[in-house]
Amino acid sequence: MSGTEIEHLIRLIARLPGLGPRSARRAVLTLLKRRDQLLKPLIDTMIDVASKVKTCSVCGNYDSVDPCTICTDINRNFSIVCVVEDVASLWAMERSRLFRGCYHVLGGVLSALDGVGPNDLTIDSLVVRAESIIVNEVILAMAATVDGQTTAHYLVDRLSECHVSISCLAQGVPIGGELDYLDDGTIGVALRARQPFI
Amino acid sequence: MSGTEIEHLIRLIARLPGLGPRSARRAVLTLLKRRDQLLKPLIDTMIDVASKVKTCSVCGNYDSVDPCTICTDINRNFSIVCVVEDVASLWAMERSRLFRGCYHVLGGVLSALDGVGPNDLTIDSLVVRAESIIVNEVILAMAATVDGQTTAHYLVDRLSECHVSISCLAQGVPIGGELDYLDDGTIGVALRARQPFI
Repeated sequence: MSGTEIEHLIRLIARLPGLGPRSARRAVLTLLKRRDQLLKPLIDTMIDVASKVKTCSVCGNYDSVDPCTICTDINRNFSIVCVVEDVASLWAMERSRLFRGCYHVLGGVLSALDGVGPNDLTIDSLVVRAESIIVNEVILAMAATVDGQTTAHYLVDRLSECHVSISCLAQGVPIGGELDYLDDGTIGVALRARQPFI
Repeated sequence: MSGTEIEHLIRLIARLPGLGPRSARRAVLTLLKRRDQLLKPLIDTMIDVASKVKTCSVCGNYDSVDPCTICTDINRNFSIVCVVEDVASLWAMERSRLFRGCYHVLGGVLSALDGVGPNDLTIDSLVVRAESIIVNEVILAMAATVDGQTTAHYLVDRLSECHVSISCLAQGVPIGGELDYLDDGTIGVALRARQPFI
């Protein structure tokens, strides 16, 4: 191909999730074609992000201020802490615009296979937060996977002394889900957790 | 979400081909998680590319030198010019490692729908190159689409006075292609262009 810089950029872009060498090449060609509209703004924004964005020392969210805008928003209810696996889950919760409490980012889930133990996650600081008199409910919003649910059970154990009520997200048929396409596990869960029709 | 810089970066990355808002969010989270290994090298390489990479004045390829490394490679055969639609096609030809001539990037194909006429492409400079005594063959490596083939026919017309032999890529069954999955057009072309079995 042409130019070691170009090849280097393709290799770096191909390391982003969801991109392979082919889509990285397309991305680089688009960047080269649209230097002023795309490549230069992208460089400037990346420099901005690299220098300004930090991890919130309270909840673990990414923001340009510490504590983050969520942790300092006086319209939020700081008595409810929603525990999420990672910042991606936090952003997903925020997009739903339904939760007005605050968050705690664990930084992953317990996983024997990947060698992730309790000390690799921010569990101690969660317990400290749950012990404070401000907090009275902890919502466990882990993924409905084996590792996610194992982590949730472990957290329930660890939070048992904290005098907070602990809840978790409901499991069942997702909105728009057709029974024919759902796995047996989901149907079983939805059946066991059936609710009176309103 | 959190931080205007982050949202701005997500919007910019979502403008790359093949990426939507969802994959852009994942990409940004990966960049934030791996600042030193990915975000900072990416910034440096992008700055490098933005400042160094230019369009080759001879063939239209992207490279950090002008004329590009292909146009100045003495091991190449400058009597054969392969005409390609864009730099992506040039890179695809180079990956095959079979062509040892030089290139001419048209910058697109004629398209009535998209309003691309002969003056929007580098056809005049192709004719000038074909008129030089060095060049004796022009290979038309356009896509096997309606616009690509229209462009090829137009180029044959324009090059008719240039005393160069003009060829085009063979059309037929692609390697690994099963007849059952091929369209009628391809089967028809492959049948008409059938060759003696060696």
